[in-house]
Amino acid sequence: MIQAKGYAVQNATSALAPWNFERREVGPHDVHFDIQYCGICHSDLHQARDEWGGSIYPMVPGHELVGKVIKVGAHVKKFKAGDLVGVGCLVDSCRTCENCKEGLEQYCLNGMSPTYNGYEQDHKTPTYGGYSNTIVVHEDFVLSVSEKLSLAAVAPLLCAGITTYSPLRHWKVGKGHKLAVVGLGGLGHMAVKFGVAFGAEVTVLSTSASKEADARKLGAHKFVVTSDEAQVKSVRGYFDFILDTVSAAHDFNLYLSLLRTNGTHICVGVPPDPAAVHAFSLIAGRKTLAGSMIGGLPETQEMLDFCAKHNIVSDIEIIDIKDINKAYERMVKGDVRYRFVIDMATL
Amino acid sequence: MIQAKGYAVQNATSALAPWNFERREVGPHDVHFDIQYCGICHSDLHQARDEWGGSIYPMVPGHELVGKVIKVGAHVKKFKAGDLVGVGCLVDSCRTCENCKEGLEQYCLNGMSPTYNGYEQDHKTPTYGGYSNTIVVHEDFVLSVSEKLSLAAVAPLLCAGITTYSPLRHWKVGKGHKLAVVGLGGLGHMAVKFGVAFGAEVTVLSTSASKEADARKLGAHKFVVTSDEAQVKSVRGYFDFILDTVSAAHDFNLYLSLLRTNGTHICVGVPPDPAAVHAFSLIAGRKTLAGSMIGGLPETQEMLDFCAKHNIVSDIEIIDIKDINKAYERMVKGDVRYRFVIDMATL
Repeated sequence: MIQAKGYAVQNATSALAPWNFERREVGPHDVHFDIQYCGICHSDLHQARDEWGGSIYPMVPGHELVGKVIKVGAHVKKFKAGDLVGVGCLVDSCRTCENCKEGLEQYCLNGMSPTYNGYEQDHKTPTYGGYSNTIVVHEDFVLSVSEKLSLAAVAPLLCAGITTYSPLRHWKVGKGHKLAVVGLGGLGHMAVKFGVAFGAEVTVLSTSASKEADARKLGAHKFVVTSDEAQVKSVRGYFDFILDTVSAAHDFNLYLSLLRTNGTHICVGVPPDPAAVHAFSLIAGRKTLAGSMIGGLPETQEMLDFCAKHNIVSDIEIIDIKDINKAYERMVKGDVRYRFVIDMATL
Repeated sequence: MIQAKGYAVQNATSALAPWNFERREVGPHDVHFDIQYCGICHSDLHQARDEWGGSIYPMVPGHELVGKVIKVGAHVKKFKAGDLVGVGCLVDSCRTCENCKEGLEQYCLNGMSPTYNGYEQDHKTPTYGGYSNTIVVHEDFVLSVSEKLSLAAVAPLLCAGITTYSPLRHWKVGKGHKLAVVGLGGLGHMAVKFGVAFGAEVTVLSTSASKEADARKLGAHKFVVTSDEAQVKSVRGYFDFILDTVSAAHDFNLYLSLLRTNGTHICVGVPPDPAAVHAFSLIAGRKTLAGSMIGGLPETQEMLDFCAKHNIVSDIEIIDIKDINKAYERMVKGDVRYRFVIDMATL
């Protein structure tokens, strides 16, 4: 076995602290790489604190990993030592169901293996994530990362990036479309960048007027403060698409009223409670409320290649791993523009 | 003015009773026809009793009208005296907004004129519906009805028919699709007929096992009792589309779990309270929850022509107008298979 070190939580109330564990030996189809950077996703915190239930401890969070290949298995052709690679939210899936065969491994019908807080496909070996120095992953779930971009700023693309890229591509959002992005956080700021890159007119909807300058800097064409009734009224029936990245409770009927006839509201955030949706909000205007979860492996690679070509990365703040508990507290307050990334050299 | 008689409610608690009123003179673009049959929609009852709020009294309900043309205005080319015609849920719209121009008059951005419980485009003349002997409607909102079909059984196509036809066409439901129909009432029984006609595999989801024989007679290929856990489990992740005709409170998350990845749940019923929708129900499988409201004029004519070609009508029970209050009580209990139609000769 390979000795690994990282930061883990031992239960729902413990802080993240150093923890030693083991990774499997490099199998014929495995890629072994040292993790150089790992993004911090809000869902790391939800799972570390068991806020969604069913958490598995000890837990090493982290599903936005980038680093450099040390060694590959005998049958691996796509990667070699020294390559820059990444791993996102999943490290395996059944590979046989119809979704896996279509490259939609995130919707594996037999249950994909999440990068942490889950099990390998043997359904008993726990997976440990990216808040660690090294990892072994099957080549099919390893992504190729361009040397052209800042490696640290690429890390969040593996979750925040693909989670917003995938629905915009699936619903073919682009030229001629009016896109609203709700919530300007880790996901939202990527949604703005992709929406602009795809040619849509992008409006940021935010509860906080203070974010306007940032939204404009990210490329947004318009900014609407959702607590200002007059501003909200001016965009009623206006948008073709709303990409909703908010995980806090919010009024879906308000947002649905901002859609044009045939408009689509896409949720990628997960509020704690069910949304109260009036049937009339959907029926009057043939509107749809949809959800989308991360992305499959082929599309994640497509996204990384798109980012390399168009020079798109996340806006990040790099932290030392010893400051991770402080970073969690700041994340709860929304005090991050827009993603913390751990420099794993500080481990 | 043209003297008309009908049945009206005078306020939210009064029974339907005879009432005399006036229709406008026949203008150059108007069609004047005698109403021979009028279907009774559950929404007639909701509005008569002000259950949705904002009802306008006196109210002559009814938006499933068929009859024979008496007279047309000087400029009317499409219709002549003696033609069979129908009118559905709307009698006018602004005709200038982008939705009207696209034949989506039901989503008129300036507010369409409903056949009753609303106002003409002057925003002050109340509209009176089909529980009456005669009506004058602009030719653009009058539909041509085939002589091939039973006229009484055509009436419910004007609301129950188009409300189910339109979403099935919009989402291109057909061969190779697994369609579930929730609720086997006025709308649901039409959804089954159309789903079968379009080539889909149709399953009726019902709380009541007693409806299976009827569902099969209507053409349904499968029947699932939603109170039977084993039956429900057997169709988890099974359907491409669910057409939900239920206006009572129900668990949307249960139905969403029956959809395949990328599946669509379409609401055409309006439950009294907002639906509680978990984000995970949509996100895990990229599912969509959509709404659809009746249909535009071009599509309603297309539907009537399709029905004439494929010999599709509603299953109805014809009543005398003096029995209308009893019919309402039976409708509340779900005691109708599947649509009451008033024989207007009994007025």
